[in-house]
Amino acid sequence: MQKNITVIEGDGIGPEVTRQSVKILNAIAAQFNHTFNYTYHLMGAVAIDKTGNPLPDETIESCLNSDAVLFGAIGHPKYDNDPTAKVRPEQGLLKLRKSLQLFANIRPVNTYPALQHLAPLKAEKLEGVDFIIFRELTGGIYFGKKELSEDGTKASDDCVYTTPEIERIAHLAFQYAQKPERRKKLTLVDKANVLETSRLWRKVVQEISKQYPDVAVDYMFVDNASMQIMLNPKQFDIVLTENMFGDIISDEASVLSGSLGLLPSASVGTGTVLFEPIHGSYPQAAGKDIANPLGSILSAAMMLEHFGLSTEAALVREAVKWTLENGFVSKDIEPVNFYFTSTIGDLISDYV
Amino acid sequence: MQKNITVIEGDGIGPEVTRQSVKILNAIAAQFNHTFNYTYHLMGAVAIDKTGNPLPDETIESCLNSDAVLFGAIGHPKYDNDPTAKVRPEQGLLKLRKSLQLFANIRPVNTYPALQHLAPLKAEKLEGVDFIIFRELTGGIYFGKKELSEDGTKASDDCVYTTPEIERIAHLAFQYAQKPERRKKLTLVDKANVLETSRLWRKVVQEISKQYPDVAVDYMFVDNASMQIMLNPKQFDIVLTENMFGDIISDEASVLSGSLGLLPSASVGTGTVLFEPIHGSYPQAAGKDIANPLGSILSAAMMLEHFGLSTEAALVREAVKWTLENGFVSKDIEPVNFYFTSTIGDLISDYV
Ligand SMILES: CC(C)[C@H](C(=O)O)[C@@H](O)C(=O)O
Ligand SMILES: CC(C)[C@H](C(=O)O)[C@@H](O)C(=O)O
Repeated sequence: MQKNITVIEGDGIGPEVTRQSVKILNAIAAQFNHTFNYTYHLMGAVAIDKTGNPLPDETIESCLNSDAVLFGAIGHPKYDNDPTAKVRPEQGLLKLRKSLQLFANIRPVNTYPALQHLAPLKAEKLEGVDFIIFRELTGGIYFGKKELSEDGTKASDDCVYTTPEIERIAHLAFQYAQKPERRKKLTLVDKANVLETSRLWRKVVQEISKQYPDVAVDYMFVDNASMQIMLNPKQFDIVLTENMFGDIISDEASVLSGSLGLLPSASVGTGTVLFEPIHGSYPQAAGKDIANPLGSILSAAMMLEHFGLSTEAALVREAVKWTLENGFVSKDIEPVNFYFTSTIGDLISDYV
Repeated sequence: MQKNITVIEGDGIGPEVTRQSVKILNAIAAQFNHTFNYTYHLMGAVAIDKTGNPLPDETIESCLNSDAVLFGAIGHPKYDNDPTAKVRPEQGLLKLRKSLQLFANIRPVNTYPALQHLAPLKAEKLEGVDFIIFRELTGGIYFGKKELSEDGTKASDDCVYTTPEIERIAHLAFQYAQKPERRKKLTLVDKANVLETSRLWRKVVQEISKQYPDVAVDYMFVDNASMQIMLNPKQFDIVLTENMFGDIISDEASVLSGSLGLLPSASVGTGTVLFEPIHGSYPQAAGKDIANPLGSILSAAMMLEHFGLSTEAALVREAVKWTLENGFVSKDIEPVNFYFTSTIGDLISDYV
C-alpha cells in the first residue's frame, strides 16, 4: 500500500512527538511492505514566525492532496497573554479544520490498568470506562461572527448551527454506536434549557434517532454531563456534542485515562482525515525530549486503522501497551525513573 | 433584627428542602430574638401551571422589596424534551437574575471529611480543597440574542460582554481574594485563544489586577481548567469566569464535595441577594421526603451571614456538620439507613 501523508509538526513539543510517530510508521512500512510518503508543512506559531501566516496556503494544498494529515500541537504563550494580538497560532488550526471540512473530532476515552494510580479517580470508578466523544468541529461559537466594538468595550461571539451541520455528525455518531463492539447508546450533551442552538440539536437528534431504532438515546445538560463524567463515567458509550461543549468535556474526560499525554484523536470530514494527540503544545517541555509521545503514536495507529491496516494498527497498540506495562514511560508518568521521548519512540519502533 | 424574605420554593424538590430552611430560620429567630417575615411567591414550572408565566410580576415585585430571596429549585422534564416549547421554567430564573441584576453567582467549593468516601476522587486529592467560584450571571450567551430561522433549520445564540459587566464582578472577586482568610490568588477561566469575548475578559482583568497588587492572577483556558479541577483542585483560591463556563465548571467542581446535595450558593448584584442550593429540581425525588436539605440549609446560613448574623450562621453550619458526623444523612449519602428530609430539618432546628 502507498499513502501520502502531510506532516504538520506544529509548535512546542509537536515536532519531537510527531517524529516518534514517523519513526514507527517507517518501521511498519518496512515490516509490511508499504510506502508512506511524507510532506512537511508549517502551521501555528512556527508558521507565523517564518511566514507571518498561521496557515500558509501550501499547507492547505498539501493536506487536500494527501491521504491523511499527521499533526503535532499548536499554541505559544506569547500570544495567550496578549489579548490584542491580531494573528494567533490557533487561527491556523481552526482554518485548517474548516478548509478540510473536518466536521467531527473523534476522541476515544479509555483507561489503562498500568496508569490507574495516576488518575485522580478511585480505581472502582475507572474499571470498564470506554466511551467515544464525537465533538462537532467546524461550527458553533468557534466559527460564528466575532466582533469588538471600535472603542474596545464590547465584544461578541455568535454561536450558529444549521440542521445539515448537526445531521452529518449525528449520523456518523449513530453509525458508530451501532458497531458490534459498541453498547448502542448515544448521549447528546447540550444546554437545551437555555440555548436555541441546543434546542435545534435536540430536535434534529430526536428526528434522526428514528432511523437507528437499536440505539438508545439520552439527553443530558452540559452542566450535568460535567458531573456525570466523574461520578459515573461507565454510563457513557457514544457522546455527541457541539464544538465548545466538546472542547471542555473531552479534556475533562481525559483525566480518566491517567494521563492527557496518551490520548489520540481523529478529525474526519468529507475528505482527508487529520490525526493528532489531544494534548497541547506544552511549551515548558519543548526541546527537552521529555514529552509523552504516546498520544501522537496512538494517533498514528488510528491513521493506520483508517487506511484499513488493522493488523498494523493493532501491533502499534500492542507495543504501546508493552511500554506502559514495563515502565518504559515518560516523565509525566514517572517523574524520576523516566525514559526520553526519543527512547520510547525507538523501543516501539524496534518492537513493531 | 427584622428581615423580609421572599421565599420561592419552585419546582420538584424545591418546596420540601426550602421548608427545612424556613424551619431552621424560625428556630434561629426564636433563639436570637429576630423577626423574619416570609412572603411566598411562584416561579418555574409551578408558576407556568398556575399562571401561564414562569415569573409572575408579583414575584419580581416582592423580591425587589425584600432583604433577601430564598429559592429552592427549577425545572421539569416535560419541557426538557420538548425543544419546541415556547414557555419554559428556566426562563423564570433567568429573568429574575436579570430583574434583580444578580450579576455574580458565588459558589464555595469545600470538602467534608465525613463525605470523602462518596467523592469519586482519591482522598489525597481532596484534602485542603477550598475555593470559591465567581460566575458572571447576567451576561454572555445566556442573555444574547437567540434566533431560529423561519423554516427552523438554523439557530443562533449570541454571546456578548461589555467592559462594565466584566469590571463589576472582577472587582468583587478581587476583593474576596484579599480577605484575610483567602490565599490571595485569582484564576480567570476563559477561552481567549478562540473567543473575542474571552479576550475582552482577559484584557479587563489584566487592567483591574493592577489595583490589587497583593493578589496573584493567572489565566487558564476553560478546557484546561476542566482538567485542573480534577487533577489539582488545591491550586485554586478564587476562580472568576463568564456565565456558561461557570455553569459547567461549578457543577463539575461540586463532585469534589462528595454530594451535589449540600452545596449552597449566593447570587449577588446591586440590591436584593438570592440564596439557593446548586442542585436542580430532581423531579424523580419530589414529594418523597428523601432529598438532601443541606444545600438549602447552608444557603440559608449564607443568608444569615449576609444579614451580618455570623454567630447564627456559624451555629447552623455547626449543626449541619453534627448531622453529617453522626450519620443523620439523606438517601443520596446513605442509600439504606437514611433519614428523611424533614427529620434532618427537625434535628438541625432542635440543635440550633
Ligand atoms: C487549540 C484550540 C483552538 C483547540 C480547540 O479549542 O479546539 C484545542 O483546545 C483542541 O481541543 O483541539
Ligand atoms: C436551570 C439553569 C437555567 C441554571 C443555569 O444554567 O444557570 C442552572 O443550571 C444553574 O446553574 O443555576
